[in-house]
Amino acid sequence: MHQKAYISETKIRVRYSETDQAGLVYYGNYAQYYEVGRIEALRQLGHTYKGLEEAGVVMPVLSMNIKYIRPALYDDLLTIKTIIREAPITRMNFEYEISNESGKLLNKGETTLVFVSKETYKTIKAPEWFTGLIEKAINEDD
Amino acid sequence: MHQKAYISETKIRVRYSETDQAGLVYYGNYAQYYEVGRIEALRQLGHTYKGLEEAGVVMPVLSMNIKYIRPALYDDLLTIKTIIREAPITRMNFEYEISNESGKLLNKGETTLVFVSKETYKTIKAPEWFTGLIEKAINEDD
Amino acid sequence: MHQKAYISETKIRVRYSETDQAGLVYYGNYAQYYEVGRIEALRQLGHTYKGLEEAGVVMPVLSMNIKYIRPALYDDLLTIKTIIREAPITRMNFEYEISNESGKLLNKGETTLVFVSKETYKTIKAPEWFTGLIEKAINEDD
Amino acid sequence: MHQKAYISETKIRVRYSETDQAGLVYYGNYAQYYEVGRIEALRQLGHTYKGLEEAGVVMPVLSMNIKYIRPALYDDLLTIKTIIREAPITRMNFEYEISNESGKLLNKGETTLVFVSKETYKTIKAPEWFTGLIEKAINEDD
Repeated sequence: MHQKAYISETKIRVRYSETDQAGLVYYGNYAQYYEVGRIEALRQLGHTYKGLEEAGVVMPVLSMNIKYIRPALYDDLLTIKTIIREAPITRMNFEYEISNESGKLLNKGETTLVFVSKETYKTIKAPEWFTGLIEKAINEDD
Repeated sequence: MHQKAYISETKIRVRYSETDQAGLVYYGNYAQYYEVGRIEALRQLGHTYKGLEEAGVVMPVLSMNIKYIRPALYDDLLTIKTIIREAPITRMNFEYEISNESGKLLNKGETTLVFVSKETYKTIKAPEWFTGLIEKAINEDD
Repeated sequence: MHQKAYISETKIRVRYSETDQAGLVYYGNYAQYYEVGRIEALRQLGHTYKGLEEAGVVMPVLSMNIKYIRPALYDDLLTIKTIIREAPITRMNFEYEISNESGKLLNKGETTLVFVSKETYKTIKAPEWFTGLIEKAINEDD
Repeated sequence: MHQKAYISETKIRVRYSETDQAGLVYYGNYAQYYEVGRIEALRQLGHTYKGLEEAGVVMPVLSMNIKYIRPALYDDLLTIKTIIREAPITRMNFEYEISNESGKLLNKGETTLVFVSKETYKTIKAPEWFTGLIEKAINEDD
């Protein structure tokens, strides 16, 4: 059985600043790559996280899990695959898979974000149009 | 029943560069704080991670999990509590708890690291003296 | 002839995340160290940059110049010397000298900052109490 | 009179992690953008900095100057213009101009780099083929 999901891909070139003296991408920098992955996933749906913030919604991260499999190296052109399996109500899950140019899986992660009012900083429901947008994307994608 | 562990504490002042436009510490920067936590935990045992690397051992991170509870803010003086519950054989687990000056728990995380030869980049056992050092610290601490 | 100045020193331990694959501190990270230098210079005068921001004043950077002499290395305990030669009116200059534990000068830099209203984002004069604070520090220091 | 130069352009999208709590790109992060600018300038000439390092040449930065004119904002799609006016012998100068999507100049900078042997860490001359490559690019460009 096929599990429905919206899957988006984006590319990132590893910067020199992102490596450390072990000659690999520093383990903490993948959080930035995941952020780019989810921001571009929204952009590919015709929307931006910036727009959400301008509409008064902020999405802080509640949790992050990463499994490091192989290191990313300087100048690698990485593919960030971002997977959304469920339209958000009060929380939103993103899964990520990063692979290099030869298609090797480098790491997998997931983050859970929450919707918060920019003014009150209280948790709120995802805007209805946003939930609808994600729902449509999940159902159309294959 | 009391579970034995070696617990170390260190302080970090939040830098302006570590905040983002939400006015909080960027969620990816805690990996750096955890790194400082485990480096200082070793230093307090009279040893340095730098020394390990000079002895030919590198410790890449295999996994990281973070639960974000409250945000750290600019200029906060954070306490990083680093907890080691088991002397390492081929892997080493660190748990972390970050709290602010008023004692509020901000986030909890854990990382698993592995021992690797700097030359061959193959996994190796932790050096015996290192395992012994950690074992002693766990048993002495209360 | 002795040129009056307020000189402040603070220590920073180089983090693993701050190195790059050349095995040195990444050249862009010194801007962070300079920021810590000037923030701690203010704190040592009994004041905080955080307090300035809370009072509605932001200090964006207008220019930065760095001369790199020797590299800082992982785990180095650096001394950041921050030098203020003039009490600010609309702009404020900071000079920096970073040296390592054996007293070697690693790099020198300077930044010019400007005072801006947090609300209007227009340039403003430094608050009078602030100018006075710096003036006093410059005259007392030797 | 027209001054010959090789001019290269590349685009960077501002990441959330690169902003700070003033709501702007942190002043220290432009060093990373400049690095991307010069790396892509070389790539557009059919060469990579990675290749230089693999051939035993490292290029540490000797100096950096930045003039900040307007701030870059989150999600801005920046254009980094990198300008090389002279083929390198022992040093190499890069100038940079960063502008946003509406064509406004945000900041200007320059860096001077030096050629160093990866093994001895002594300064060396630029490889002849490299000097030739840059010379050709400067003369052909208009």
